[in-house]
Amino acid sequence: MTAAVNRQFRLARRPVGMVGREDFEFVENPVPTPGDGEFLVRLHYISLDPAMRGWMNEGKSYIAPVGIGEVMRAGAVGEVVASNHPGFAVGEHVVGTFGVQDYAISNGKGVSKADPALAPLPVYLGTLGMPGMTAYFGLLEVGKPQAGDTVVVSGAAGAVGQIVGQIAKLKGCRVVGIAGGTDKCRYVVDELGFDACIDYKHDDLRKALKQHCPQGVNVYFDNVGGDILDTVLTQLAMGARIVICGAISQYNNTTPVKGPSNYLSLLVNRASMQGMVVFDWADRYGEAVREMGAWLASGQLKTREDIAEGLEHFPETLQRLFKGENTGKLVLKV
Amino acid sequence: MTAAVNRQFRLARRPVGMVGREDFEFVENPVPTPGDGEFLVRLHYISLDPAMRGWMNEGKSYIAPVGIGEVMRAGAVGEVVASNHPGFAVGEHVVGTFGVQDYAISNGKGVSKADPALAPLPVYLGTLGMPGMTAYFGLLEVGKPQAGDTVVVSGAAGAVGQIVGQIAKLKGCRVVGIAGGTDKCRYVVDELGFDACIDYKHDDLRKALKQHCPQGVNVYFDNVGGDILDTVLTQLAMGARIVICGAISQYNNTTPVKGPSNYLSLLVNRASMQGMVVFDWADRYGEAVREMGAWLASGQLKTREDIAEGLEHFPETLQRLFKGENTGKLVLKV
Repeated sequence: MTAAVNRQFRLARRPVGMVGREDFEFVENPVPTPGDGEFLVRLHYISLDPAMRGWMNEGKSYIAPVGIGEVMRAGAVGEVVASNHPGFAVGEHVVGTFGVQDYAISNGKGVSKADPALAPLPVYLGTLGMPGMTAYFGLLEVGKPQAGDTVVVSGAAGAVGQIVGQIAKLKGCRVVGIAGGTDKCRYVVDELGFDACIDYKHDDLRKALKQHCPQGVNVYFDNVGGDILDTVLTQLAMGARIVICGAISQYNNTTPVKGPSNYLSLLVNRASMQGMVVFDWADRYGEAVREMGAWLASGQLKTREDIAEGLEHFPETLQRLFKGENTGKLVLKV
Repeated sequence: MTAAVNRQFRLARRPVGMVGREDFEFVENPVPTPGDGEFLVRLHYISLDPAMRGWMNEGKSYIAPVGIGEVMRAGAVGEVVASNHPGFAVGEHVVGTFGVQDYAISNGKGVSKADPALAPLPVYLGTLGMPGMTAYFGLLEVGKPQAGDTVVVSGAAGAVGQIVGQIAKLKGCRVVGIAGGTDKCRYVVDELGFDACIDYKHDDLRKALKQHCPQGVNVYFDNVGGDILDTVLTQLAMGARIVICGAISQYNNTTPVKGPSNYLSLLVNRASMQGMVVFDWADRYGEAVREMGAWLASGQLKTREDIAEGLEHFPETLQRLFKGENTGKLVLKV
């Protein structure tokens, strides 16, 4: 059942600018043997997330950086193939921070189970995983949308954005996505049911926001930062809430992060901008998974995964994320 | 009782960069006569506020700009010298938006009374006026300090800052001011009782914040924007609240406003940044005036006014404000 080798991507150095293959070492090691209270997982799908870029940098953040020489941190879903742990049996599917490799040893901490009968395994890395949790709690607990509000979300065709917009629709909001390219915009409007989607690569964002948000923006869920955040700031409604979830446009910068020049719009509009990290709601993930699972089952919530193949293609697949080439949740099939 | 002329500063053009005398026209007009339901006020003190710079710019803000040719908008306190209004008698002192001039006509809208027996007239433009209201509601309702929190306030020796810090002390917080120059810092610590004051012109702000806020900053009340806001962002405690009250460092810019590059600290620290405009609490000013009046009377709250003399010196006095040359509330004695 177990292969002879465990291929791993280890962090070779701290990237400068766009992350690439040269930032990793691709090594082969023997498949490890689980000790007492441990189990061995064969990974099926690895999650590619914008946050990974931050984990590669030195310095204090909301989580410690990956050390040089360590296996690159990543969420993944796989199958237990050997176990000395009473809670995890061979054949069970599990989700955890297993890293970019073929096999991982775990003691069960932070690991949850996945039922492939309820949803395909990649969904446990997306809509029923961290991105889905981020969308759910970030929108509902930080953005606090009210029925009738206009909600704008950037990265609208991405793992988090696609869910934010659909939940906002379920809550009775008018939803406008921002995404790069016609195909993504079509996906967001035609398949997910957003009211509109602005193609920031093609449209005049400010004009398009004025057109699609004539009453101003009540909630802005920001995944991208940079110029898009700055432009949305010019279109806020009174009392607007901006959820700072991420800033993917800035993560591979070699120059300083672009701060939002128009932040004084917060003053004029009595608006707020609040940061979030999904881990803070860890004790409520179950609640979100139940509600979103029901929405998925009933077809009220749609989810798309963008599945790349081959562990060996990890660095280039990660680049696709930062170049905005994925539609839906990007995962790597091992 | 009334002089022959009413001297007025009228806005002559939209300033570019630092406001100056050339942006105004200094004219003399006859003293107007109050019509039915109106009264005439002879101004004693005119308020000089950072917000005035914004009122001179074109474009949508929280209040309409002053039109070219109009008397420059300003808060002021004065005495009723003629009245056809049943609610305002000759000899009463009144506070309102009377403009930069010797005399103003009013119908009583937005005008409140001042009792010189309770506090000197300039205090009604500062601690018992807009700056005091701004400090009170901005700190308590937006910053929401808890006893034991570390509260940082910029423009600490200014009209708003001096009050913010003292209220925070009254609420059991550790208070660190940021001000420009040794004299201001001495005033803030020795006279107002702040725990510390950082001289941003002399000290390394980041190092000083680390030293004086070893647990991080829980509440930051920002009056200045620019590099100071950006540096405070690097020292936030988890769940910090930033009150965006103003950005005096940016108001006379000819280049775009400097956005806070370190805004992603909001994400890491689950912090929020919220804008405020004091008018939103207009129906609660009475409550604040009563509480702050009692603190003033008991000596728990101190207030300083920086009194310049001569209406004719208005433009240069306004420049003093933007150059940070005032300590305490800057007013112009007519």
